[in-house]
Amino acid sequence: MPVATIKFYLREGLLHPGVPTARNQADYGEKHVARLRLTRILTGVGQLSLASVREVFAAIDDPLLSCHGLCCLVNAAMFSERPMSAEEGASESARAQVDDFIDKLGWRVGPDAPGRVALAQALDGLQGLGWGADVGVFGPYAAAVERLACFERDSMPTGPAETVVAQTILFEVALVTLRRMAQEHSWVS
Amino acid sequence: MPVATIKFYLREGLLHPGVPTARNQADYGEKHVARLRLTRILTGVGQLSLASVREVFAAIDDPLLSCHGLCCLVNAAMFSERPMSAEEGASESARAQVDDFIDKLGWRVGPDAPGRVALAQALDGLQGLGWGADVGVFGPYAAAVERLACFERDSMPTGPAETVVAQTILFEVALVTLRRMAQEHSWVS
Repeated sequence: MPVATIKFYLREGLLHPGVPTARNQADYGEKHVARLRLTRILTGVGQLSLASVREVFAAIDDPLLSCHGLCCLVNAAMFSERPMSAEEGASESARAQVDDFIDKLGWRVGPDAPGRVALAQALDGLQGLGWGADVGVFGPYAAAVERLACFERDSMPTGPAETVVAQTILFEVALVTLRRMAQEHSWVS
Repeated sequence: MPVATIKFYLREGLLHPGVPTARNQADYGEKHVARLRLTRILTGVGQLSLASVREVFAAIDDPLLSCHGLCCLVNAAMFSERPMSAEEGASESARAQVDDFIDKLGWRVGPDAPGRVALAQALDGLQGLGWGADVGVFGPYAAAVERLACFERDSMPTGPAETVVAQTILFEVALVTLRRMAQEHSWVS
């Protein structure tokens, strides 16, 4: 990683200063390396703005925030960068169907989770296609991601909060990427 | 939809002109409505630029392009808007592991599919976390999206190309959204 990038992160407050060892030298430890690695993941594949990265780091440094709270915050940051819920919002009817769907799944997801609006928007879009799509069409998708969430929780090392956040984002990228390749494949066979 | 938006799409060449019925009136048919609907989905939840939308429409209007070709083009457009593969590229080693992984899945995906680089970047990120992640960790994700691709192909009405493209994007949004909610849920239970 270029020194200029590290200096930029320091100036932007994304990296704690190292321990000064000489007039223009400082020592950086394992924690700094972990933070640098996560910064690259968040701004790179995660495409978060520096403002969002700063929020995520504040959450990581907050000893009172649970893994659940951190996960909600990272999700909110990801949604805010790709404003699916931009201008339009979703119809009342789609919102109600999605809330009911999440209830039936038994998922404990906050009433104001941005995912609810985004899913309702997707439902509005599908219903506009005119083949009578029903919220139940999301059933196989919900089952798949629920299994994957269990897989991640049970088989990945949890490690420090930096690792958990990095994994969450990297596996999301992997999932989307694999989905696109699977679609390409499915049209050949 | 506001008239100004429709006029904007006309000016930008995203919508074919209607059939003139009076000096400042024109008739728009079912095809126009489908195109408008798709434009909103592509620029809204799909977050494609107008340039990409224009490319997608040119592909839809190309009678020689197969569903597979259209799917590749839409995927490439989605990747280009969210440049996972931006500056950095992926390591040779991750590239080779991903190519081998896709081979073993038996997926027919072009050698230059942008998904290969994006997946290799995710693998590089995971390997940087230091717990010895191997490309096989993507196995459950690949299996899940392959099942979902079959589900979409077999149980959704195919309809015109506009519908296929809209569905592909809407289900991707639904998948990501549901994944984030499932993660939130998994940290509570």
